[in-house]
Amino acid sequence: MRSLWVEKRKDDPVKTQMYYAKQGIITQEMEYVAKIEKLSPELIRSEIARGRLIIPANVNHTTLEPMAIGIAATCKINANIGSSAIASDVQGEVEKMQVSQHYKADTAMDLSTGGDLDEIRKAVIASSKIPIGTVPIYQILHDVGNKIEDLSIEVMLEVLERQAKQGVSYFTIHAGFLLETMPKIAKRKMGIVSRGGSLMAAWMMHYHRENPFYTAYDEILDICARYDVALSLGDSLRPGCLADASDDAQLGELKVLGELTLRAWEKNVQVMIEGPGHVPLNQIERNMKLQRELCHEAPFYILGPLVTDIAAGYDHISSAIGAAVGGWHGASMLCYVTPKEHLGLPNANDVREGIIAYKIAAHAADIARGRKGARDIDDEMSDARYRFDWNRQFELALDSERAREYHDETLPQDVFKEAEFCSMCGPKFCSYKITQSIMDNPEAIEQIAREVKEREALGA
Amino acid sequence: MRSLWVEKRKDDPVKTQMYYAKQGIITQEMEYVAKIEKLSPELIRSEIARGRLIIPANVNHTTLEPMAIGIAATCKINANIGSSAIASDVQGEVEKMQVSQHYKADTAMDLSTGGDLDEIRKAVIASSKIPIGTVPIYQILHDVGNKIEDLSIEVMLEVLERQAKQGVSYFTIHAGFLLETMPKIAKRKMGIVSRGGSLMAAWMMHYHRENPFYTAYDEILDICARYDVALSLGDSLRPGCLADASDDAQLGELKVLGELTLRAWEKNVQVMIEGPGHVPLNQIERNMKLQRELCHEAPFYILGPLVTDIAAGYDHISSAIGAAVGGWHGASMLCYVTPKEHLGLPNANDVREGIIAYKIAAHAADIARGRKGARDIDDEMSDARYRFDWNRQFELALDSERAREYHDETLPQDVFKEAEFCSMCGPKFCSYKITQSIMDNPEAIEQIAREVKEREALGA
Repeated sequence: MRSLWVEKRKDDPVKTQMYYAKQGIITQEMEYVAKIEKLSPELIRSEIARGRLIIPANVNHTTLEPMAIGIAATCKINANIGSSAIASDVQGEVEKMQVSQHYKADTAMDLSTGGDLDEIRKAVIASSKIPIGTVPIYQILHDVGNKIEDLSIEVMLEVLERQAKQGVSYFTIHAGFLLETMPKIAKRKMGIVSRGGSLMAAWMMHYHRENPFYTAYDEILDICARYDVALSLGDSLRPGCLADASDDAQLGELKVLGELTLRAWEKNVQVMIEGPGHVPLNQIERNMKLQRELCHEAPFYILGPLVTDIAAGYDHISSAIGAAVGGWHGASMLCYVTPKEHLGLPNANDVREGIIAYKIAAHAADIARGRKGARDIDDEMSDARYRFDWNRQFELALDSERAREYHDETLPQDVFKEAEFCSMCGPKFCSYKITQSIMDNPEAIEQIAREVKEREALGA
Repeated sequence: MRSLWVEKRKDDPVKTQMYYAKQGIITQEMEYVAKIEKLSPELIRSEIARGRLIIPANVNHTTLEPMAIGIAATCKINANIGSSAIASDVQGEVEKMQVSQHYKADTAMDLSTGGDLDEIRKAVIASSKIPIGTVPIYQILHDVGNKIEDLSIEVMLEVLERQAKQGVSYFTIHAGFLLETMPKIAKRKMGIVSRGGSLMAAWMMHYHRENPFYTAYDEILDICARYDVALSLGDSLRPGCLADASDDAQLGELKVLGELTLRAWEKNVQVMIEGPGHVPLNQIERNMKLQRELCHEAPFYILGPLVTDIAAGYDHISSAIGAAVGGWHGASMLCYVTPKEHLGLPNANDVREGIIAYKIAAHAADIARGRKGARDIDDEMSDARYRFDWNRQFELALDSERAREYHDETLPQDVFKEAEFCSMCGPKFCSYKITQSIMDNPEAIEQIAREVKEREALGA
């Protein structure tokens, strides 16, 4: 469907959603997401013009079904996929992409660092209806033979252009990490835990020159504007442990990201801001507020945050806790973390576990924000539970297959799909069933209400 | 060790920790938990006397290692085990008990409703160093041939006495659910989802008489005082879905629980209060505050709460989110929920998954509360990560076996236990490694700091 939309606009001087929004034009992408979000197209347009909402939609990703990231929209989640030097093949990544879409990730980032990067990315985009983001520094480093000191602005821009042409819808670039911040890092427990950030640090230390993504920021914006690639301004200095959370290094970079946001908006480039990381529960709300203030309400895209450092093997859970609270307090997209975090490269099953944990967090955030209609599906589920409609319960569950599998572990036969109990309590102890037999008798309840009233009247 | 402690006190008129605390006596149990909690024995004593902290420690559970539940102590977690009519055997429950202790549940509740209840409970207590709680109505119903209308106060008290004699350290009783509340339930989407609560409702509807646990509350307190069984005042009307959260039925019962708390304290019986359930994220803090006000700061023991209703198969996660926020805002113990919630009876692996999710929630709560030393283990983990000490990382992880297993999935060889990378990013892209090579050169960092300063002085 999107080929036609893009085709019609091919001669326009600028083709970004933000450009159209500022001109007062409602694009078909805006109309599409307005329907999904149950918001007016005009609201979507004005939020994009204001920079508070983005539609990451590269003009060359024509199989894309547009989606929106911003506080007016539902809270979104991203799944990271990608190869590493230790484990890499095209088919494996396409499989992760299919799993990501099956469990309804809203965007996916191809973070491949091993194997044929262009081929993997091509296959990933071709198999995807959701926007694909990348961290171009990984390929840049690859292209200069893994010698960071050989990175030049020319190579950098060439790789960005190549990926933009392929249809990448957002780039994470680490442009906000400046030389002046370097001494602040020495005070940290964990230093730099962003891969891109650490590479920038190595380059800056080698040359004693400013971050090349910062230096060439205007040229980068020009590429982004040409293909409507959104920028995801990376937090090179996100805290890698609770001890480093909300420190000067993190907040200093956030301030620079705010300045870069304004520069991008001037060139009609859509922007979101990346956020932590590892943050104690009681600092999350403050982090969300600071980002809004320093970054002019550009959408916040947070990685977790993990609320403890000791949950290796279960960091999808430790981070879903932080993500839910972050989403509630205003983050627009939650980047998932899988059970393999801190331990190894996730496989397809880890992708599933990570996505569902984050669907829970994002949905809990929508409900807590008081978003209209957010709780409707929960209410439907409760109704299905109360009437023992097991098949409907499985359908409504975030992971239908898993729900059915767990139920059927003890009661596999079809007859139990309408049974008025499950193996948790067995037939004699089902509270729903007992409650229903009571509620079936409204007269008795009224009778009790009368009795209580009478006793009260007697002062008993 | 505890046999001697109890033996020495055998002729005392009252033997509850609360009684001693009120007399100004510091028991050996109080000293023991003071050491664990790194608090002064006098603080423990005064908190128990005030009712703000309990040590659930039946005088007959002599293998018990005492532990404390209350806001002054670390946040605790409970694991529910127990058979149902569909799946029941003694060995299975003992295995769940071992898993519970291995993964460090702080208490366990034996909620068995199927099989030989006395035998299961005996085996569970014998294999346990942690306090065991029960919901006696399950056995009461069993003993009257599953006919709730045959429940009499005599049978009720006999079962309580029998379980107390066996060494149960806390009873959940549903004494706060009164006849007058019945009409409020008719307004709910899910009615009553507490098994005990629904049974009480059935009894009250049958006889049009007040809840027998309420009527016989004084006799129940006498039994509890004799064995030092703590009361866990059950929330029969906890919301079973988001739609019913914080409603009149729930809060009306909470008020009655507050009155029952004062009556228990008069008889030197320790009390905690049970709480929801299913609650949207944004209502959790308010729920914690209301409980403190209405229940005179008795410890709050919450079940989750789940922050969405649509996560069947993953409700350990949806509820760990609510539990972490609840613990942060003052809940003293978090009752775990397993991945099987709403679907079936948990097995030993589900117990493991549930416990770790809740260890994460409780620990995140301790950190967020600003508890002294709470973050020490996180800092140790971060140090181990930064120096690539993989074995130490596995040791510090909440589930060491799982962490090792996931790491070894891609890099099983011993040599990788000191490798300066993992399969997540591979050797070329490890941010820690890159950061360390930079930080190894403090002179270069100082040089940069000087350069930045000079440039600033020049107004550049």
